[in-house]
Amino acid sequence: MTDMRQTILDAMRFRFACKQFDPNRPVSDDDFRCILEAARLSPSSFGFEPWQILAIEDKELREAIRSVSWGAQTQLPSCSRFIVLLARKPEAMTPTSDYIQRTIMQETQHQPDDLQKARTQKYDTFLKIDFCYGDNERAKFEWACRQCYIALGNMFTAAALLGIDSCPCEGFQKEPLEQLLAERGLVNGDEYGVACMAAFGYRKEPPHREKTRRPMEQVVRWI
Amino acid sequence: MTDMRQTILDAMRFRFACKQFDPNRPVSDDDFRCILEAARLSPSSFGFEPWQILAIEDKELREAIRSVSWGAQTQLPSCSRFIVLLARKPEAMTPTSDYIQRTIMQETQHQPDDLQKARTQKYDTFLKIDFCYGDNERAKFEWACRQCYIALGNMFTAAALLGIDSCPCEGFQKEPLEQLLAERGLVNGDEYGVACMAAFGYRKEPPHREKTRRPMEQVVRWI
Repeated sequence: MTDMRQTILDAMRFRFACKQFDPNRPVSDDDFRCILEAARLSPSSFGFEPWQILAIEDKELREAIRSVSWGAQTQLPSCSRFIVLLARKPEAMTPTSDYIQRTIMQETQHQPDDLQKARTQKYDTFLKIDFCYGDNERAKFEWACRQCYIALGNMFTAAALLGIDSCPCEGFQKEPLEQLLAERGLVNGDEYGVACMAAFGYRKEPPHREKTRRPMEQVVRWI
Repeated sequence: MTDMRQTILDAMRFRFACKQFDPNRPVSDDDFRCILEAARLSPSSFGFEPWQILAIEDKELREAIRSVSWGAQTQLPSCSRFIVLLARKPEAMTPTSDYIQRTIMQETQHQPDDLQKARTQKYDTFLKIDFCYGDNERAKFEWACRQCYIALGNMFTAAALLGIDSCPCEGFQKEPLEQLLAERGLVNGDEYGVACMAAFGYRKEPPHREKTRRPMEQVVRWI
């Protein structure tokens, strides 16, 4: 296990927000599939998997996305793989929606009917009461985004373990980007909104500065 | 790299939401430190690291937390390690706050003063305009939670790579839990709110059912 601890920490230290990728070094299909699989197998609240991934290979579409993404100016033209991570909207995740009922049914199969009802009820009160979202629809969308970021983090870590560089791209204008994707029929706006984007590839040059992080004693408090 | 792909996928499949841990099998200090380190080294938007981790060793405090956490009834008494993941509140992350200015200064050191100003400005408009949060303070808190979930995902994956089980715990009542932590002086309510909780340990028994996930073709769309 000592080796694995070292492997994990090496990967975490290897990863940095890579702005410029080597455009001549592609990420292999096998490696990229592994990264996507790390996202797919990620945990999510209630097991709802409120995510979808657009894998953008099309160069022209990448340029269009770049026009509304100030934070991905150098990444988009140079990276090997680029994804848009979508989160399910609250209106597509109401307790009685087909999607939620299907997921709950799958989780509670071969169990009493009451359990399915109880789980639906639980989910209903969970967001509104326990997490105090009330009628704040945007906050409910953000809850789905939280889950997406588990998958996002796993993609970066899987990539780093494979020696592949990455960059999270939150630097975009949400509404113009969503409109652009909707106009091209890539996103049903009633169902999904954009949570985040990410680039993958191999670094063109080493990071310009050392990783800075707050020291452990500021991050963790022992009680 | 083939071996590493297998290692990653094995870990993702090994992980499940473990409800019942073996109370007699502790997670070693070295392993737990590695899990915490995976969180500390996680990426975050603007490099703000808007998180803090409470590592709850105290049994009495675990019981108190349990009283407001319907989702952690079996995990809390049986797990070896338990954490409360805190997210910074918007009022402690205003562009002009000491915390944000300190982080931006660290990122832009040895660079023209203008860059620090520009970055402060960028952050200011980013949340309000680009991400359309406007004055929705809860949504801004959720943005910090998104970042926390990257760290959360990395903790679960690091644990799984080390053969350690885990369980995310979103099943709590936010306000009573925050009040409880504030009363004990563990959380400054002006600075942090609870994002999530998590348990770590070794499973008492195998998962009751197979992992279910939507198939890859429903999760990823190629363009």
